[in-house]
Amino acid sequence: MVCRLRKLARPRGVSDAGETRVGYQGEPGAFSEEAVLALFPEAEPVPHPGFQPIFDDVEAGHLRYGVVPVENAQAGSINEAYDLLGRGRVSIVGEVMVQVDHALLALPGTTLDDVRQVSSHPQALAQCEEFLAGLGVEVVAVYDTAGAAKRIADGRRAGEAAVAAPRAAEIYGLAVLARGIQTHPDNQTRFVAISADPEPLGPEERTSILLGVRNEPGALYRALGHLAGRNLNLSKLESRPDGRVPWRYRFYLDVDAGLHDGALAAALEALRAEVEFLTVLGSYPRWRPQGVA
Amino acid sequence: MVCRLRKLARPRGVSDAGETRVGYQGEPGAFSEEAVLALFPEAEPVPHPGFQPIFDDVEAGHLRYGVVPVENAQAGSINEAYDLLGRGRVSIVGEVMVQVDHALLALPGTTLDDVRQVSSHPQALAQCEEFLAGLGVEVVAVYDTAGAAKRIADGRRAGEAAVAAPRAAEIYGLAVLARGIQTHPDNQTRFVAISADPEPLGPEERTSILLGVRNEPGALYRALGHLAGRNLNLSKLESRPDGRVPWRYRFYLDVDAGLHDGALAAALEALRAEVEFLTVLGSYPRWRPQGVA
Repeated sequence: MVCRLRKLARPRGVSDAGETRVGYQGEPGAFSEEAVLALFPEAEPVPHPGFQPIFDDVEAGHLRYGVVPVENAQAGSINEAYDLLGRGRVSIVGEVMVQVDHALLALPGTTLDDVRQVSSHPQALAQCEEFLAGLGVEVVAVYDTAGAAKRIADGRRAGEAAVAAPRAAEIYGLAVLARGIQTHPDNQTRFVAISADPEPLGPEERTSILLGVRNEPGALYRALGHLAGRNLNLSKLESRPDGRVPWRYRFYLDVDAGLHDGALAAALEALRAEVEFLTVLGSYPRWRPQGVA
Repeated sequence: MVCRLRKLARPRGVSDAGETRVGYQGEPGAFSEEAVLALFPEAEPVPHPGFQPIFDDVEAGHLRYGVVPVENAQAGSINEAYDLLGRGRVSIVGEVMVQVDHALLALPGTTLDDVRQVSSHPQALAQCEEFLAGLGVEVVAVYDTAGAAKRIADGRRAGEAAVAAPRAAEIYGLAVLARGIQTHPDNQTRFVAISADPEPLGPEERTSILLGVRNEPGALYRALGHLAGRNLNLSKLESRPDGRVPWRYRFYLDVDAGLHDGALAAALEALRAEVEFLTVLGSYPRWRPQGVA
Protein backbone atom coordinates (compact mmCIF):
# COMPACT_ATOMS: atom_id res chain seq x y z
CA MET A 1 0.00 0.00 0.00
CA VAL A 2 2.79 2.40 0.82
CA CYS A 3 4.36 1.86 -2.62
CA ARG A 4 1.03 2.47 -4.32
CA LEU A 5 0.63 5.71 -2.43
CA ARG A 6 4.08 6.95 -3.22
CA LYS A 7 3.45 6.44 -6.91
CA LEU A 8 0.23 8.41 -6.72
CA ALA A 9 1.51 11.08 -4.43
CA ARG A 10 4.92 11.92 -5.86
CA PRO A 11 5.00 14.39 -8.75
CA ARG A 12 6.10 12.72 -11.99
CA GLY A 13 9.81 12.84 -12.68
CA VAL A 14 10.97 12.91 -9.11
CA SER A 15 13.48 10.14 -8.56
CA ASP A 16 14.03 8.13 -5.41
CA ALA A 17 17.46 9.67 -5.01
CA GLY A 18 17.63 12.47 -2.46
CA GLU A 19 14.03 12.18 -1.35
CA THR A 20 13.33 13.52 2.12
CA ARG A 21 11.38 11.12 4.34
CA VAL A 22 8.58 12.93 6.22
CA GLY A 23 6.46 11.17 8.84
CA TYR A 24 2.68 11.63 9.12
CA GLN A 25 -0.09 9.98 11.12
CA GLY A 26 -2.47 7.62 9.42
CA GLU A 27 -2.70 5.52 6.30
CA PRO A 28 -1.99 6.64 2.73
CA GLY A 29 -4.77 9.01 1.67
CA ALA A 30 -4.93 10.75 5.07
CA PHE A 31 -5.32 14.53 5.23
CA SER A 32 -1.96 14.54 7.07
CA GLU A 33 -0.35 13.10 3.93
CA GLU A 34 -1.75 16.02 1.94
CA ALA A 35 -0.15 18.36 4.47
CA VAL A 36 3.23 16.64 3.95
CA LEU A 37 2.99 17.06 0.18
CA ALA A 38 1.86 20.71 0.45
CA LEU A 39 4.98 21.56 2.50
CA PHE A 40 7.41 19.10 0.87
CA PRO A 41 6.20 18.40 -2.70
CA GLU A 42 9.12 16.07 -3.44
CA ALA A 43 9.19 14.19 -0.15
CA GLU A 44 8.45 10.59 0.58
CA PRO A 45 5.53 10.60 3.04
CA VAL A 46 6.02 7.86 5.65
CA PRO A 47 2.82 6.61 7.37
CA HIS A 48 2.90 6.24 11.16
CA PRO A 49 0.34 4.68 13.54
CA GLY A 50 0.19 7.74 15.83
CA PHE A 51 1.73 11.08 16.78
CA GLN A 52 4.15 9.70 19.34
CA PRO A 53 5.95 7.35 16.89
CA ILE A 54 6.48 10.37 14.58
CA PHE A 55 8.04 12.41 17.38
CA ASP A 56 10.13 9.39 18.44
CA ASP A 57 11.45 8.89 14.89
CA VAL A 58 12.21 12.60 14.41
CA GLU A 59 13.92 12.86 17.81
CA ALA A 60 16.02 9.75 17.07
CA GLY A 61 17.03 11.09 13.63
CA HIS A 62 15.25 8.31 11.69
CA LEU A 63 13.20 10.98 9.94
CA ARG A 64 14.36 14.46 8.96
CA TYR A 65 10.84 15.91 9.37
CA GLY A 66 7.44 15.03 10.72
CA VAL A 67 4.14 16.80 10.03
CA VAL A 68 1.39 16.78 12.67
CA PRO A 69 -1.99 18.56 12.95
CA VAL A 70 -2.18 21.03 15.83
CA GLU A 71 -5.55 22.69 15.34
CA ASN A 72 -8.78 22.53 13.37
CA ALA A 73 -10.55 25.83 12.70
CA GLN A 74 -13.87 24.41 13.93
CA ALA A 75 -12.93 21.74 16.47
CA GLY A 76 -9.94 23.45 18.08
CA SER A 77 -6.56 22.28 19.30
CA ILE A 78 -5.30 18.74 19.05
CA ASN A 79 -4.16 18.19 22.61
CA GLU A 80 -1.87 15.23 22.05
CA ALA A 81 0.19 17.15 19.49
CA TYR A 82 0.64 20.08 21.88
CA ASP A 83 1.70 17.76 24.68
CA LEU A 84 4.35 16.11 22.47
CA LEU A 85 5.62 19.53 21.33
CA GLY A 86 5.84 20.40 25.02
CA ARG A 87 8.51 17.72 25.52
CA GLY A 88 10.75 20.30 23.82
CA ARG A 89 12.94 17.76 21.98
CA VAL A 90 12.05 18.94 18.44
CA SER A 91 11.54 22.35 16.86
CA ILE A 92 8.64 23.65 14.81
CA VAL A 93 10.22 24.60 11.47
CA GLY A 94 7.13 25.35 9.35
CA GLU A 95 3.34 25.34 9.19
CA VAL A 96 0.65 24.59 6.60
CA MET A 97 -3.12 24.94 6.41
CA VAL A 98 -5.05 22.17 4.66
CA GLN A 99 -8.68 22.44 3.55
CA VAL A 100 -10.43 19.36 4.97
CA ASP A 101 -13.23 18.37 2.59
CA HIS A 102 -14.72 15.13 3.80
CA ALA A 103 -16.34 12.59 1.47
CA LEU A 104 -18.41 9.47 2.09
CA LEU A 105 -16.68 6.45 0.53
CA ALA A 106 -17.95 2.88 0.02
CA LEU A 107 -17.48 -0.16 -2.23
CA PRO A 108 -18.35 0.59 -5.88
CA GLY A 109 -22.04 -0.05 -6.60
CA THR A 110 -23.14 1.09 -3.12
CA THR A 111 -25.88 3.75 -2.94
CA LEU A 112 -26.56 6.08 0.00
CA ASP A 113 -29.63 3.97 0.84
CA ASP A 114 -27.48 0.85 1.20
CA VAL A 115 -25.28 2.37 3.91
CA ARG A 116 -26.00 0.98 7.38
CA GLN A 117 -22.76 1.87 9.17
CA VAL A 118 -20.31 4.77 8.85
CA SER A 119 -16.82 4.73 10.38
CA SER A 120 -14.08 7.34 10.69
CA HIS A 121 -11.88 9.24 13.13
CA PRO A 122 -14.03 10.77 15.90
CA GLN A 123 -13.06 14.32 14.90
CA ALA A 124 -14.07 13.68 11.27
CA LEU A 125 -17.37 12.19 12.45
CA ALA A 126 -17.95 15.28 14.60
CA GLN A 127 -17.23 17.58 11.67
CA CYS A 128 -19.88 15.75 9.57
CA GLU A 129 -22.43 15.37 12.36
CA GLU A 130 -25.34 17.04 10.53
CA PHE A 131 -24.91 14.99 7.37
CA LEU A 132 -24.59 11.73 9.34
CA ALA A 133 -27.62 12.51 11.52
CA GLY A 134 -29.63 12.90 8.30
CA LEU A 135 -28.55 9.43 7.11
CA GLY A 136 -29.75 7.75 10.32
CA VAL A 137 -26.97 5.12 10.34
CA GLU A 138 -24.80 3.50 12.99
CA VAL A 139 -21.63 5.55 13.50
CA VAL A 140 -18.36 3.87 14.58
CA ALA A 141 -15.18 5.64 15.72
CA VAL A 142 -11.86 4.26 14.44
CA TYR A 143 -8.31 5.61 14.58
CA ASP A 144 -8.03 7.43 11.28
CA THR A 145 -9.99 8.51 8.21
CA ALA A 146 -7.97 6.76 5.50
CA GLY A 147 -7.70 3.68 7.72
CA ALA A 148 -11.51 3.53 7.80
CA ALA A 149 -11.54 3.57 3.98
CA LYS A 150 -8.81 0.91 3.76
CA ARG A 151 -10.73 -1.36 6.15
CA ILE A 152 -13.83 -1.26 3.95
CA ALA A 153 -11.81 -1.90 0.80
CA ASP A 154 -9.65 -4.69 2.26
CA GLY A 155 -12.61 -6.42 3.94
CA ARG A 156 -15.00 -5.92 0.98
CA ARG A 157 -17.45 -4.64 3.60
CA ALA A 158 -20.80 -4.08 1.88
CA GLY A 159 -23.23 -1.63 3.49
CA GLU A 160 -20.43 0.22 5.26
CA ALA A 161 -19.04 3.64 4.41
CA ALA A 162 -16.08 5.72 5.59
CA VAL A 163 -15.70 9.48 6.08
CA ALA A 164 -12.34 10.32 4.48
CA ALA A 165 -10.60 12.44 1.84
CA PRO A 166 -11.74 11.94 -1.78
CA ARG A 167 -8.10 10.94 -2.50
CA ALA A 168 -8.56 7.88 -0.29
CA ALA A 169 -11.23 6.67 -2.76
CA GLU A 170 -8.65 6.64 -5.58
CA ILE A 171 -6.03 4.92 -3.47
CA TYR A 172 -8.29 2.14 -2.19
CA GLY A 173 -10.60 1.75 -5.21
CA LEU A 174 -13.75 2.99 -3.48
CA ALA A 175 -16.68 5.02 -4.83
CA VAL A 176 -17.46 8.55 -3.62
CA LEU A 177 -21.12 8.62 -2.49
CA ALA A 178 -21.09 12.27 -1.33
CA ARG A 179 -18.57 15.12 -1.18
CA GLY A 180 -18.09 18.15 1.07
CA ILE A 181 -20.21 16.56 3.80
CA GLN A 182 -18.67 18.55 6.69
CA THR A 183 -21.04 20.95 8.48
CA HIS A 184 -18.78 24.00 8.02
CA PRO A 185 -17.66 24.47 4.41
CA ASP A 186 -14.50 26.34 5.46
CA ASN A 187 -13.01 23.46 7.45
CA GLN A 188 -9.25 24.05 7.66
CA THR A 189 -6.66 22.26 9.73
CA ARG A 190 -3.29 23.73 10.70
CA PHE A 191 -0.31 21.37 10.65
CA VAL A 192 3.26 22.03 11.79
CA ALA A 193 6.48 20.53 10.48
CA ILE A 194 8.85 19.35 13.21
CA SER A 195 12.55 18.53 13.05
CA ALA A 196 15.44 17.75 15.39
CA ASP A 197 17.29 20.58 13.57
CA PRO A 198 15.75 23.99 14.45
CA GLU A 199 16.62 25.44 10.99
CA PRO A 200 13.28 26.81 9.70
CA LEU A 201 11.91 26.08 6.21
CA GLY A 202 12.09 29.80 5.34
CA PRO A 203 12.28 33.23 6.99
CA GLU A 204 11.29 33.42 10.68
CA GLU A 205 7.89 35.16 10.87
CA ARG A 206 6.01 33.38 13.64
CA THR A 207 7.34 32.05 16.94
CA SER A 208 5.73 29.41 19.14
CA ILE A 209 6.54 29.44 22.84
CA LEU A 210 5.56 27.37 25.85
CA LEU A 211 5.19 29.18 29.15
CA GLY A 212 4.71 28.10 32.76
CA VAL A 213 3.57 30.94 35.01
CA ARG A 214 3.63 31.07 38.80
CA ASN A 215 0.41 29.94 40.44
CA GLU A 216 -0.72 33.37 41.68
CA PRO A 217 -3.44 35.84 40.66
CA GLY A 218 -2.53 37.94 37.63
CA ALA A 219 0.61 35.94 36.70
CA LEU A 220 -0.58 35.24 33.15
CA TYR A 221 -1.78 38.82 32.81
CA ARG A 222 1.67 40.17 33.71
CA ALA A 223 3.34 37.71 31.34
CA LEU A 224 1.11 38.77 28.42
CA GLY A 225 1.91 42.38 29.28
CA HIS A 226 5.50 41.90 28.12
CA LEU A 227 4.15 41.06 24.66
CA ALA A 228 1.23 43.51 24.50
CA GLY A 229 3.44 46.35 25.74
CA ARG A 230 5.68 45.82 22.70
CA ASN A 231 2.74 45.64 20.28
CA LEU A 232 3.41 41.97 19.50
CA ASN A 233 0.31 40.14 18.22
CA LEU A 234 -0.66 36.77 19.68
CA SER A 235 -2.25 34.62 16.97
CA LYS A 236 -2.91 31.80 19.44
CA LEU A 237 -3.15 31.24 23.18
CA GLU A 238 -3.84 27.75 24.45
CA SER A 239 -3.91 26.48 28.02
CA ARG A 240 -3.03 22.85 28.66
CA PRO A 241 -2.78 20.88 31.89
CA ASP A 242 0.73 20.92 33.33
CA GLY A 243 0.78 17.10 33.25
CA ARG A 244 2.36 16.73 36.69
CA VAL A 245 0.26 18.77 39.13
CA PRO A 246 -3.51 18.39 38.52
CA TRP A 247 -5.34 21.64 37.64
CA ARG A 248 -2.14 23.56 36.96
CA TYR A 249 -1.63 24.87 33.45
CA ARG A 250 1.04 25.73 30.94
CA PHE A 251 0.36 28.08 28.02
CA TYR A 252 1.18 27.71 24.32
CA LEU A 253 1.53 31.05 22.53
CA ASP A 254 2.07 31.88 18.86
CA VAL A 255 3.53 35.35 18.38
CA ASP A 256 3.47 37.00 14.95
CA ALA A 257 7.18 37.87 14.92
CA GLY A 258 10.46 36.08 14.24
CA LEU A 259 12.74 35.03 17.07
CA HIS A 260 15.35 37.63 16.08
CA ASP A 261 12.87 40.50 15.89
CA GLY A 262 14.13 43.04 18.46
CA ALA A 263 10.79 43.49 20.18
CA LEU A 264 10.25 39.74 20.61
CA ALA A 265 13.83 39.22 21.82
CA ALA A 266 13.31 41.92 24.48
CA ALA A 267 9.93 40.47 25.48
CA LEU A 268 11.40 36.97 25.87
CA GLU A 269 14.22 38.34 28.02
CA ALA A 270 11.73 40.10 30.31
CA LEU A 271 9.51 37.00 30.43
CA ARG A 272 12.38 34.65 31.30
CA ALA A 273 13.15 36.75 34.38
CA GLU A 274 9.60 36.33 35.65
CA VAL A 275 7.98 33.03 34.63
CA GLU A 276 8.53 29.51 35.95
CA PHE A 277 9.82 28.30 32.60
CA LEU A 278 9.84 29.38 28.97
CA THR A 279 10.65 27.14 25.99
CA VAL A 280 10.88 28.40 22.41
CA LEU A 281 9.23 25.65 20.35
CA GLY A 282 10.33 27.13 17.02
CA SER A 283 10.41 30.21 14.78
CA TYR A 284 9.31 29.65 11.19
CA PRO A 285 7.62 31.14 8.10
CA ARG A 286 3.86 31.74 8.08
CA TRP A 287 1.98 29.58 5.60
CA ARG A 288 0.96 31.16 2.32
CA PRO A 289 -1.14 29.13 -0.14
CA GLN A 290 1.72 29.15 -2.70
CA GLY A 291 4.04 27.41 -0.26
CA VAL A 292 6.92 28.59 1.81
CA ALA A 293 9.83 26.67 0.35
CA MET B 1 -30.23 -2.34 31.98
CA VAL B 2 -31.36 1.04 33.17
CA CYS B 3 -33.58 -0.51 35.83
CA ARG B 4 -30.76 -2.72 37.06
CA LEU B 5 -28.50 0.29 37.31
CA ARG B 6 -31.00 2.36 39.19
CA LYS B 7 -31.34 -0.36 41.78
CA LEU B 8 -27.58 -0.51 42.25
CA ALA B 9 -27.04 3.21 42.16
CA ARG B 10 -29.76 4.60 44.35
CA PRO B 11 -29.11 4.60 48.10
CA ARG B 12 -31.42 2.19 49.92
CA GLY B 13 -34.65 3.66 51.13
CA VAL B 14 -35.05 6.34 48.52
CA SER B 15 -38.44 6.05 46.91
CA ASP B 16 -39.36 6.73 43.31
CA ALA B 17 -41.49 9.67 44.40
CA GLY B 18 -39.87 13.07 43.97
CA GLU B 19 -36.72 11.80 42.23
CA THR B 20 -34.91 14.35 40.12
CA ARG B 21 -34.01 13.10 36.64
CA VAL B 22 -30.43 14.02 35.70
CA GLY B 23 -29.02 13.36 32.24
CA TYR B 24 -25.50 11.99 31.64
CA GLN B 25 -23.60 10.72 28.62
CA GLY B 26 -22.99 7.00 28.23
CA GLU B 27 -24.36 3.72 29.47
CA PRO B 28 -25.02 2.77 33.09
CA GLY B 29 -21.66 2.36 34.85
CA ALA B 30 -20.09 5.36 33.11
CA PHE B 31 -17.90 7.76 35.09
CA SER B 32 -20.45 10.44 34.19
CA GLU B 33 -23.09 8.50 36.10
CA GLU B 34 -20.79 8.57 39.17
CA ALA B 35 -20.59 12.34 38.76
CA VAL B 36 -24.42 12.56 38.75
CA LEU B 37 -24.65 10.54 41.97
CA ALA B 38 -21.88 12.53 43.68
CA LEU B 39 -23.77 15.80 43.05
CA PHE B 40 -27.33 14.43 43.34
CA PRO B 41 -27.24 11.32 45.59
CA GLU B 42 -31.00 10.78 45.32
CA ALA B 43 -31.40 11.48 41.62
CA GLU B 44 -32.42 9.17 38.84
CA PRO B 45 -29.47 9.17 36.38
CA VAL B 46 -30.79 9.13 32.80
CA PRO B 47 -28.36 7.73 30.15
CA HIS B 48 -27.94 9.72 26.91
CA PRO B 49 -26.12 8.83 23.69
CA GLY B 50 -24.11 12.09 23.60
CA PHE B 51 -23.64 15.58 25.04
CA GLN B 52 -25.95 17.34 22.60
CA PRO B 53 -29.05 15.25 23.52
CA ILE B 54 -28.44 16.15 27.19
CA PHE B 55 -28.32 19.87 26.40
CA ASP B 56 -31.39 19.51 24.16
CA ASP B 57 -33.36 17.78 26.92
CA VAL B 58 -32.30 20.29 29.58
CA GLU B 59 -33.06 23.28 27.31
CA ALA B 60 -36.49 21.82 26.47
CA GLY B 61 -37.29 21.21 30.15
CA HIS B 62 -37.46 17.40 29.78
CA LEU B 63 -34.70 17.14 32.37
CA ARG B 64 -34.16 19.41 35.37
CA TYR B 65 -30.38 18.88 35.29
CA GLY B 66 -27.65 17.45 33.13
CA VAL B 67 -24.08 16.60 34.15
CA VAL B 68 -21.28 16.78 31.57
CA PRO B 69 -17.47 16.47 31.81
CA VAL B 70 -15.62 19.67 30.90
CA GLU B 71 -12.00 18.82 31.67
CA ASN B 72 -9.65 16.03 32.60
CA ALA B 73 -6.64 16.94 34.75
CA GLN B 74 -4.28 15.13 32.37
CA ALA B 75 -5.95 15.30 28.94
CA GLY B 76 -7.39 18.80 29.17
CA SER B 77 -10.65 20.36 28.11
CA ILE B 78 -13.51 18.52 26.46
CA ASN B 79 -14.14 20.77 23.49
CA GLU B 80 -17.64 19.61 22.62
CA ALA B 81 -18.91 20.38 26.12
CA TYR B 82 -17.45 23.91 25.98
CA ASP B 83 -19.03 24.52 22.59
CA LEU B 84 -22.47 23.45 23.85
CA LEU B 85 -22.10 25.64 26.96
CA GLY B 86 -21.24 28.46 24.54
CA ARG B 87 -24.75 28.29 23.06
CA GLY B 88 -25.71 30.07 26.29
CA ARG B 89 -29.12 28.40 26.67
CA VAL B 90 -28.39 26.70 30.01
CA SER B 91 -26.56 27.78 33.15
CA ILE B 92 -23.80 26.03 35.04
CA VAL B 93 -25.26 25.50 38.53
CA GLY B 94 -22.60 23.28 40.14
CA GLU B 95 -19.39 21.33 39.62
CA VAL B 96 -17.90 18.05 40.81
CA MET B 97 -14.51 16.33 40.54
CA VAL B 98 -14.50 12.55 40.01
CA GLN B 99 -11.44 10.32 40.44
CA VAL B 100 -11.21 8.28 37.22
CA ASP B 101 -9.70 4.90 38.08
CA HIS B 102 -9.80 2.74 34.98
CA ALA B 103 -10.04 -1.04 35.12
CA LEU B 104 -9.67 -3.75 32.48
CA LEU B 105 -12.89 -5.79 32.26
CA ALA B 106 -13.62 -9.03 30.42
CA LEU B 107 -15.88 -12.09 30.54
CA PRO B 108 -15.40 -14.13 33.75
CA GLY B 109 -12.68 -16.75 33.33
CA THR B 110 -10.59 -14.52 31.03
CA THR B 111 -6.91 -14.02 31.95
CA LEU B 112 -4.70 -11.13 30.83
CA ASP B 113 -2.95 -13.54 28.42
CA ASP B 114 -6.26 -14.33 26.70
CA VAL B 115 -6.93 -10.69 25.77
CA ARG B 116 -6.40 -9.97 22.07
CA GLN B 117 -8.45 -6.77 21.69
CA VAL B 118 -9.20 -3.85 24.05
CA SER B 119 -11.95 -1.30 23.38
CA SER B 120 -12.98 1.94 25.12
CA HIS B 121 -13.51 5.66 24.63
CA PRO B 122 -10.46 7.21 22.91
CA GLN B 123 -9.73 9.42 25.94
CA ALA B 124 -9.80 6.43 28.30
CA LEU B 125 -7.48 4.53 25.93
CA ALA B 126 -5.12 7.50 25.89
CA GLN B 127 -5.12 7.68 29.69
CA CYS B 128 -4.09 3.99 29.85
CA GLU B 129 -1.62 4.09 26.97
CA GLU B 130 1.39 2.73 28.88
CA PHE B 131 -0.51 -0.22 30.31
CA LEU B 132 -2.04 -1.09 26.93
CA ALA B 133 1.29 -0.79 25.11
CA GLY B 134 2.68 -3.34 27.57
CA LEU B 135 -0.16 -5.78 26.71
CA GLY B 136 0.57 -5.62 23.00
CA VAL B 137 -3.07 -6.00 21.91
CA GLU B 138 -5.26 -4.47 19.22
CA VAL B 139 -6.90 -1.29 20.55
CA VAL B 140 -10.33 -0.19 19.28
CA ALA B 141 -12.02 3.18 19.92
CA VAL B 142 -15.74 3.17 20.72
CA TYR B 143 -18.10 5.87 21.99
CA ASP B 144 -18.01 5.26 25.71
CA THR B 145 -16.32 3.26 28.44
CA ALA B 146 -19.35 1.53 29.95
CA GLY B 147 -20.72 0.90 26.43
CA ALA B 148 -17.52 -1.01 25.65
CA ALA B 149 -18.10 -3.18 28.72
CA LYS B 150 -21.78 -3.74 27.84
CA ARG B 151 -20.86 -4.79 24.30
CA ILE B 152 -18.51 -7.50 25.58
CA ALA B 153 -21.09 -8.75 28.08
CA ASP B 154 -24.05 -8.69 25.65
CA GLY B 155 -22.09 -10.31 22.82
CA ARG B 156 -20.28 -12.81 25.09
CA ARG B 157 -17.12 -11.68 23.31
CA ALA B 158 -14.25 -13.93 24.43
CA GLY B 159 -10.70 -12.59 24.15
CA GLU B 160 -11.91 -8.98 24.27
CA ALA B 161 -11.58 -6.53 27.15
CA ALA B 162 -12.91 -3.04 27.91
CA VAL B 163 -11.31 -0.12 29.75
CA ALA B 164 -14.07 1.15 32.08
CA ALA B 165 -14.96 1.86 35.71
CA PRO B 166 -14.84 -1.11 38.11
CA ARG B 167 -18.56 -0.39 38.73
CA ALA B 168 -19.29 -1.37 35.13
CA ALA B 169 -18.01 -4.90 35.96
CA GLU B 170 -20.70 -5.26 38.64
CA ILE B 171 -23.45 -3.92 36.40
CA TYR B 172 -22.64 -6.10 33.39
CA GLY B 173 -21.37 -9.22 35.20
CA LEU B 174 -17.77 -8.94 34.00
CA ALA B 175 -14.49 -9.81 35.75
CA VAL B 176 -11.89 -7.16 36.69
CA LEU B 177 -8.53 -8.26 35.19
CA ALA B 178 -6.58 -5.17 36.37
CA ARG B 179 -7.33 -2.00 38.34
CA GLY B 180 -5.89 1.53 38.34
CA ILE B 181 -4.38 1.02 34.88
CA GLN B 182 -4.23 4.74 33.98
CA THR B 183 -0.74 6.20 33.52
CA HIS B 184 -1.27 9.04 36.03
CA PRO B 185 -2.62 7.79 39.37
CA ASP B 186 -4.24 11.17 40.16
CA ASN B 187 -6.58 11.15 37.16
CA GLN B 188 -9.47 13.48 37.97
CA THR B 189 -12.23 14.77 35.73
CA ARG B 190 -14.23 17.92 36.38
CA PHE B 191 -17.94 17.80 35.57
CA VAL B 192 -20.48 20.63 35.63
CA ALA B 193 -24.20 20.46 36.34
CA ILE B 194 -26.35 22.40 33.89
CA SER B 195 -29.94 23.58 34.16
CA ALA B 196 -32.39 25.81 32.34
CA ASP B 197 -32.91 27.50 35.72
CA PRO B 198 -29.79 29.51 36.75
CA GLU B 199 -30.42 28.88 40.48
CA PRO B 200 -27.11 27.40 41.75
CA LEU B 201 -26.88 24.24 43.86
CA GLY B 202 -25.36 26.26 46.73
CA PRO B 203 -23.60 29.57 47.45
CA GLU B 204 -22.02 31.34 44.45
CA GLU B 205 -18.24 30.95 44.75
CA ARG B 206 -16.99 30.47 41.19
CA THR B 207 -18.23 32.16 38.00
CA SER B 208 -17.77 30.92 34.43
CA ILE B 209 -17.82 33.48 31.64
CA LEU B 210 -17.46 33.39 27.86
CA LEU B 211 -15.70 36.31 26.22
CA GLY B 212 -15.21 37.46 22.65
CA VAL B 213 -12.48 40.08 22.29
CA ARG B 214 -11.82 42.39 19.35
CA ASN B 215 -9.33 41.03 16.85
CA GLU B 216 -6.49 43.45 17.68
CA PRO B 217 -3.13 43.18 19.47
CA GLY B 218 -3.41 43.24 23.25
CA ALA B 219 -7.22 42.90 23.36
CA LEU B 220 -7.14 39.80 25.57
CA TYR B 221 -4.44 41.37 27.72
CA ARG B 222 -6.57 44.45 28.38
CA ALA B 223 -9.61 42.28 29.11
CA LEU B 224 -7.68 40.19 31.67
CA GLY B 225 -6.48 43.44 33.23
CA HIS B 226 -10.00 44.19 34.46
CA LEU B 227 -9.82 40.98 36.51
CA ALA B 228 -6.14 41.08 37.56
CA GLY B 229 -6.47 44.73 38.62
CA ARG B 230 -9.17 43.70 41.10
CA ASN B 231 -7.13 40.75 42.44
CA LEU B 232 -9.61 38.22 41.04
CA ASN B 233 -8.05 34.78 40.46
CA LEU B 234 -8.60 32.95 37.19
CA SER B 235 -8.76 29.20 37.85
CA LYS B 236 -9.14 28.46 34.12
CA LEU B 237 -8.57 30.16 30.76
CA GLU B 238 -9.45 28.27 27.61
CA SER B 239 -9.40 29.48 24.02
CA ARG B 240 -11.81 27.89 21.55
CA PRO B 241 -12.45 28.61 17.88
CA ASP B 242 -15.18 31.17 17.37
CA GLY B 243 -17.11 28.64 15.23
CA ARG B 244 -18.04 31.16 12.55
CA VAL B 245 -14.85 32.90 11.43
CA PRO B 246 -11.89 30.48 11.06
CA TRP B 247 -8.91 31.22 13.33
CA ARG B 248 -10.84 33.62 15.54
CA TYR B 249 -11.22 32.69 19.16
CA ARG B 250 -13.51 33.06 22.12
CA PHE B 251 -12.27 32.60 25.68
CA TYR B 252 -13.80 30.60 28.54
CA LEU B 253 -12.79 31.91 31.95
CA ASP B 254 -13.47 30.61 35.46
CA VAL B 255 -13.12 33.29 38.11
CA ASP B 256 -12.85 32.36 41.80
CA ALA B 257 -15.62 34.73 42.94
CA GLY B 258 -19.42 34.74 43.01
CA LEU B 259 -21.41 36.79 40.53
CA HIS B 260 -22.56 39.17 43.26
CA ASP B 261 -19.07 39.75 44.67
CA GLY B 262 -18.50 43.51 44.32
CA ALA B 263 -15.09 43.19 42.64
CA LEU B 264 -16.38 40.73 40.02
CA ALA B 265 -19.50 42.81 39.36
CA ALA B 266 -17.30 45.87 38.72
CA ALA B 267 -14.93 43.87 36.49
CA LEU B 268 -17.82 42.52 34.43
CA GLU B 269 -19.22 46.02 33.98
CA ALA B 270 -15.85 47.30 32.74
CA LEU B 271 -15.40 44.27 30.48
CA ARG B 272 -18.87 44.61 28.92
CA ALA B 273 -17.99 48.15 27.81
CA GLU B 274 -14.94 46.90 25.93
CA VAL B 275 -15.31 43.35 24.57
CA GLU B 276 -17.27 42.09 21.56
CA PHE B 277 -19.50 39.98 23.75
CA LEU B 278 -19.63 38.58 27.28
CA THR B 279 -21.90 35.78 28.49
CA VAL B 280 -22.11 34.65 32.10
CA LEU B 281 -22.38 30.85 31.90
CA GLY B 282 -23.18 30.43 35.59
CA SER B 283 -22.13 31.19 39.16
CA TYR B 284 -22.06 28.23 41.51
CA PRO B 285 -20.44 26.58 44.56
CA ARG B 286 -16.93 25.13 44.31
CA TRP B 287 -16.80 21.38 44.70
CA ARG B 288 -15.70 20.02 48.04
CA PRO B 289 -15.27 16.27 48.52
CA GLN B 290 -18.13 16.19 51.07
CA GLY B 291 -20.57 17.58 48.51
CA VAL B 292 -22.14 20.96 48.02
CA ALA B 293 -25.79 20.26 48.66
